[in-house]
Amino acid sequence: MEKLKVAILGATGAVGQRFIQLLKNHPWFQVAEVVASNRSAGQPYGEVVNWVLDGDAPEKVKHLTVKPLDAQLDSLLVFSALPKEAAEVREMTLAAAGHVVCTNASTNRMIEDIPLLLPEANADHIRLIDIQREKRGWSTGAIVANSNCTAMPVVMALAPLRRFNIKRILVVSAQAVSGAGYPGVPSLDIIDNIIPYVSGDEQKLETETLRMLGNLNGNQIEWLPAVTSASCNRVSVVDGHLVNVSVDLDAGPALDEIIDAWTSFRAPEPVLQLPTAPQPSLHYLPQVDRPQSRRDRNAGNGMATSIGRLRECPLLGYKFVALSHNTIRGAAGCSILNAELLAHQGYLANFQPAADDKLSV
Amino acid sequence: MEKLKVAILGATGAVGQRFIQLLKNHPWFQVAEVVASNRSAGQPYGEVVNWVLDGDAPEKVKHLTVKPLDAQLDSLLVFSALPKEAAEVREMTLAAAGHVVCTNASTNRMIEDIPLLLPEANADHIRLIDIQREKRGWSTGAIVANSNCTAMPVVMALAPLRRFNIKRILVVSAQAVSGAGYPGVPSLDIIDNIIPYVSGDEQKLETETLRMLGNLNGNQIEWLPAVTSASCNRVSVVDGHLVNVSVDLDAGPALDEIIDAWTSFRAPEPVLQLPTAPQPSLHYLPQVDRPQSRRDRNAGNGMATSIGRLRECPLLGYKFVALSHNTIRGAAGCSILNAELLAHQGYLANFQPAADDKLSV
Amino acid sequence: MEKLKVAILGATGAVGQRFIQLLKNHPWFQVAEVVASNRSAGQPYGEVVNWVLDGDAPEKVKHLTVKPLDAQLDSLLVFSALPKEAAEVREMTLAAAGHVVCTNASTNRMIEDIPLLLPEANADHIRLIDIQREKRGWSTGAIVANSNCTAMPVVMALAPLRRFNIKRILVVSAQAVSGAGYPGVPSLDIIDNIIPYVSGDEQKLETETLRMLGNLNGNQIEWLPAVTSASCNRVSVVDGHLVNVSVDLDAGPALDEIIDAWTSFRAPEPVLQLPTAPQPSLHYLPQVDRPQSRRDRNAGNGMATSIGRLRECPLLGYKFVALSHNTIRGAAGCSILNAELLAHQGYLANFQPAADDKLSV
Amino acid sequence: MEKLKVAILGATGAVGQRFIQLLKNHPWFQVAEVVASNRSAGQPYGEVVNWVLDGDAPEKVKHLTVKPLDAQLDSLLVFSALPKEAAEVREMTLAAAGHVVCTNASTNRMIEDIPLLLPEANADHIRLIDIQREKRGWSTGAIVANSNCTAMPVVMALAPLRRFNIKRILVVSAQAVSGAGYPGVPSLDIIDNIIPYVSGDEQKLETETLRMLGNLNGNQIEWLPAVTSASCNRVSVVDGHLVNVSVDLDAGPALDEIIDAWTSFRAPEPVLQLPTAPQPSLHYLPQVDRPQSRRDRNAGNGMATSIGRLRECPLLGYKFVALSHNTIRGAAGCSILNAELLAHQGYLANFQPAADDKLSV
Repeated sequence: MEKLKVAILGATGAVGQRFIQLLKNHPWFQVAEVVASNRSAGQPYGEVVNWVLDGDAPEKVKHLTVKPLDAQLDSLLVFSALPKEAAEVREMTLAAAGHVVCTNASTNRMIEDIPLLLPEANADHIRLIDIQREKRGWSTGAIVANSNCTAMPVVMALAPLRRFNIKRILVVSAQAVSGAGYPGVPSLDIIDNIIPYVSGDEQKLETETLRMLGNLNGNQIEWLPAVTSASCNRVSVVDGHLVNVSVDLDAGPALDEIIDAWTSFRAPEPVLQLPTAPQPSLHYLPQVDRPQSRRDRNAGNGMATSIGRLRECPLLGYKFVALSHNTIRGAAGCSILNAELLAHQGYLANFQPAADDKLSV
Repeated sequence: MEKLKVAILGATGAVGQRFIQLLKNHPWFQVAEVVASNRSAGQPYGEVVNWVLDGDAPEKVKHLTVKPLDAQLDSLLVFSALPKEAAEVREMTLAAAGHVVCTNASTNRMIEDIPLLLPEANADHIRLIDIQREKRGWSTGAIVANSNCTAMPVVMALAPLRRFNIKRILVVSAQAVSGAGYPGVPSLDIIDNIIPYVSGDEQKLETETLRMLGNLNGNQIEWLPAVTSASCNRVSVVDGHLVNVSVDLDAGPALDEIIDAWTSFRAPEPVLQLPTAPQPSLHYLPQVDRPQSRRDRNAGNGMATSIGRLRECPLLGYKFVALSHNTIRGAAGCSILNAELLAHQGYLANFQPAADDKLSV
Repeated sequence: MEKLKVAILGATGAVGQRFIQLLKNHPWFQVAEVVASNRSAGQPYGEVVNWVLDGDAPEKVKHLTVKPLDAQLDSLLVFSALPKEAAEVREMTLAAAGHVVCTNASTNRMIEDIPLLLPEANADHIRLIDIQREKRGWSTGAIVANSNCTAMPVVMALAPLRRFNIKRILVVSAQAVSGAGYPGVPSLDIIDNIIPYVSGDEQKLETETLRMLGNLNGNQIEWLPAVTSASCNRVSVVDGHLVNVSVDLDAGPALDEIIDAWTSFRAPEPVLQLPTAPQPSLHYLPQVDRPQSRRDRNAGNGMATSIGRLRECPLLGYKFVALSHNTIRGAAGCSILNAELLAHQGYLANFQPAADDKLSV
Repeated sequence: MEKLKVAILGATGAVGQRFIQLLKNHPWFQVAEVVASNRSAGQPYGEVVNWVLDGDAPEKVKHLTVKPLDAQLDSLLVFSALPKEAAEVREMTLAAAGHVVCTNASTNRMIEDIPLLLPEANADHIRLIDIQREKRGWSTGAIVANSNCTAMPVVMALAPLRRFNIKRILVVSAQAVSGAGYPGVPSLDIIDNIIPYVSGDEQKLETETLRMLGNLNGNQIEWLPAVTSASCNRVSVVDGHLVNVSVDLDAGPALDEIIDAWTSFRAPEPVLQLPTAPQPSLHYLPQVDRPQSRRDRNAGNGMATSIGRLRECPLLGYKFVALSHNTIRGAAGCSILNAELLAHQGYLANFQPAADDKLSV
């Protein structure tokens, strides 16, 4: 089977690099176009990228010539790691021109007909694409967003608890520096320090969480009717966003029932079969001091969410700790999983993925 | 004026060292006896201590001979940095023998007739000593405790808000490694990592906070009738415990009124006059990203509490961030301030402190 | 083919855990016995180990019952991660009892008939086992040592330069905290800090380097006749020992010749074919600021050595930077590679490894 | 006595802030003008500065209006924390206009008639100003430079050893992130990492060291006739540059003689009397594992150099470790000490400092 050629927007940034790294041996997709700022355009990717991940960029991609932001693209599927402003300009245009854009940018996350997709939690939101295409008159084009990286561990942990009727959610985060991109957080600001502030993330966490946990009802998403409060902190960790969550569950389950909801959680068909989907999606860790950012962020190749320390909260009923890798599960990896779901569900024009591929890492 | 000679129990540990460092130029007190495990006893302090603070131990103290744990002490005033088990054995015995023990240990914090003293917040709790002495038949002896180091920034920030009728308190901490003593937290556990667990601290935070914020009513402390929930995390920071606090204030003040309560807060007389008392006790920082552990822990020579980011909490009404230096304000410094208050109030036998001393650092 | 059962001595320590992790999917060897202090003996490994590596211990090993240090072992092949004192007692006894001991301990490194084996650099030193067995009257038993973890990147980088006649070697190290085991370096000692001292390592580096780079001449190793000077530092890095090396090469090669010696270096047959051998063994990185501890330690699954920044040294002629993963290449991984070489060369009794196995990670 | 008003060039940068912090209570000098990029000009300093040091900017300075880079200045004395390019444009112009410029920039360090001043080591180099003024036709104006921050601990440690005839110097540094200014080193580059490269510093270290240790002979500095080799590394430390030094001393002193040279070292008159001069200048630490970056950088208020671990070097004869605070002793503090020497020696027009001022911190 021939692989589907894909383009990476913002290919030289930290998340752009993560896309390229994760797609290195992807069974369905192959990086064919790399797009970056006009400053880099026209040069080989390997010469302009300051590779900030471990090791080095894949040899094949290093030889691709960087295209400018406004270049016409050949690839049907486009992954976007653009900053917000650039995303505003390009993503709609590309979708209108027939491309399927899977984006990490916050620009389009709250637009009514754009799914904020987290396949394990809300695979059915993908149906918004039909509405999107009809409303906008697009045939092959589409935009699918993924959420803020700190919302991911919250939504992954709460998705199986919807059956208990979630009423109130309080989140305090400890976020890795890679969430701010590169150069991002100056080292003088974070060595031996905590910054109790991450611009914009509290508001995103308080809204995107509810939209992702909502139900598709006819043509629109009904948000989860819960109240949320988020406090965001930056800590001296390379990768991995950890959240302390207190939650009010109206059904009042026993702690065991909650743990059981997590350990028995299975992503809906066909998500589990997708190459990038971790198995299991959730790890409930029995140790008293887990999850921990460094030791658990790579669970399920960085795509699984680790949960621990479930106990009673005197105020909201329940509290626990959750953790996801912020640039894999929380960014590039989620976009890739979204694209795999699109492929499987026939939204990538006539591209037909092979059946039994699983990502070998 | 001759200084009062004092003894340090647990003098070789991290908090014991902080006592010695803070008392180096103290106008009233002078370290005359250092007590440590029997392994160190009989040797010069300078030869057995592994000084973990900056620089070196004070020359004078280095020449003191370490006394064993069960030594009879000459000093009326005793500062205890003993671990819990050793504290259980020694502190009561010393108080019964006529010594005034100012302790950091958790052993005696919740005993009804022992004040859990934080002078800026509850100076009047010192009257429990009269009850203590009467009940136990002690004349010069006494025990005064200070709280868990993570409770300090919470109580310091909430003390001026009692007027607004505190109903619910939710705290998520980010605690420095020095809070675990020495050797304490292994570096393999904390570099590029967070440990979402600090043994015992959540329970202490949920109870000690309410006792400290309570009222002395006749012979006993009436706890603050509020509900608390605490989640404790260890982070890669040397010193400084930072807390994200959400609080429900029944009076529903405007945000400005709360900030005004903090900035106009003055410790009660005579606390403000004590050598170790910071002026002001509280710093409200207007920047959007403060307080920060490294940059604000030394405010007021490590004795002030820094507060910032007051904003509405969709769940509890109000949220903010507070920070105190955990081994100064949160441990040794608070014990010293407690002892100063005892001296001023005439609880140290016939020791009379000079009037206008202020600690020169 | 049935795998060879192996025992791990010191299985609960940091290096012991690394052995277990690296052997998880090993094509030839299978962990069958775990040996630890008597305190842990008799209990399931999973219940006594405080797993300090990422994720969790392999399920199969968690169910093994820990054996006491003096237990009689069934496994022919024994990997030792014992501390020095325990190693002194056990390793010789086990070898005399017919076991082949591949050890990380420093105890036996400098004994004349024990090879200090680094297969890429001195595979022929393995012939010392014949001498060892004859001299000691052992038939199946043997001891093979690997060097101090900081000597590894030095020897790996210098091995291909022996042709240029090495005369003087000056090394300044920056060593990761995992090199001190667990709990090892207290976090209070290393956050925002450097400790310019690692007990014993300078002396080891100055001697083991020369023995490893020496020639087997008849019955003994002739040390490389060079002068060495080492300065060892501990830094705030989890894994990866980085060395700044200045070297005097008598032949005076051009810089290009040295780089060529590195990039064309191939481990001698049959080392390259062994399951754990990286290909290539050495990476010369062209970037001006590499190798870096975090970004390059996992090259070749942690078994490759990365080199960079070759330039002229006004004093010794040449200088460069090298890096190896200290608990993989520098400890457990090297022992496993040594054992693979022993297997291939017929030193593991009648165990015959399959031909074309390569470690899948 | 009225204080001398001074201007700070590059006042909003990391070193500019350190100038302002160190001058807060200076007995002779008072910050009257703050100069920064044109973007900040015209606004109150307190509103444009992103204060990266602990606490907050001094209140008085916060109210100063920032002047643009090309502003005419009222202050005779000007401290420059300008980046190299801006320094090239402004410093000469200001000196020609009659200002005395004490600069941290590398621009003018190697110009023959500009002293590279480190008062404890080469106070007599100040006489170059006479030559400078004569040659350039300046009356009150002058330029005095201080060296690269990593050269400072090397020169401070070697200055007392000149009597032993220094022949060869090999330095490997471990440099704090504050040496790169703000935002400087991205946190993604340095958490759990080392970067074995600091742009330009090796070359500066190899040359400036020799110029500073040289002799003023008639109209020019005769460099120390020694050979130097430097390797520079960036580590995860906030402040403090630590160097591992090997040195060849032709006189072959005993180790004790070297330690004695350090402990008996006294800065020449009148340096010792200057407000910012530490007493002593050098601390020889007897512990086996000192100096350490965090624990020793603040010795002598950040102006003293700590030395330790003197031992034999098999290659060069002697080796040791030295440490200085890079933004105090290595930058702003040294400039201020230089200015104090200028004041004392009558180079600041008719400004006469009071006799017995000592900086109270």
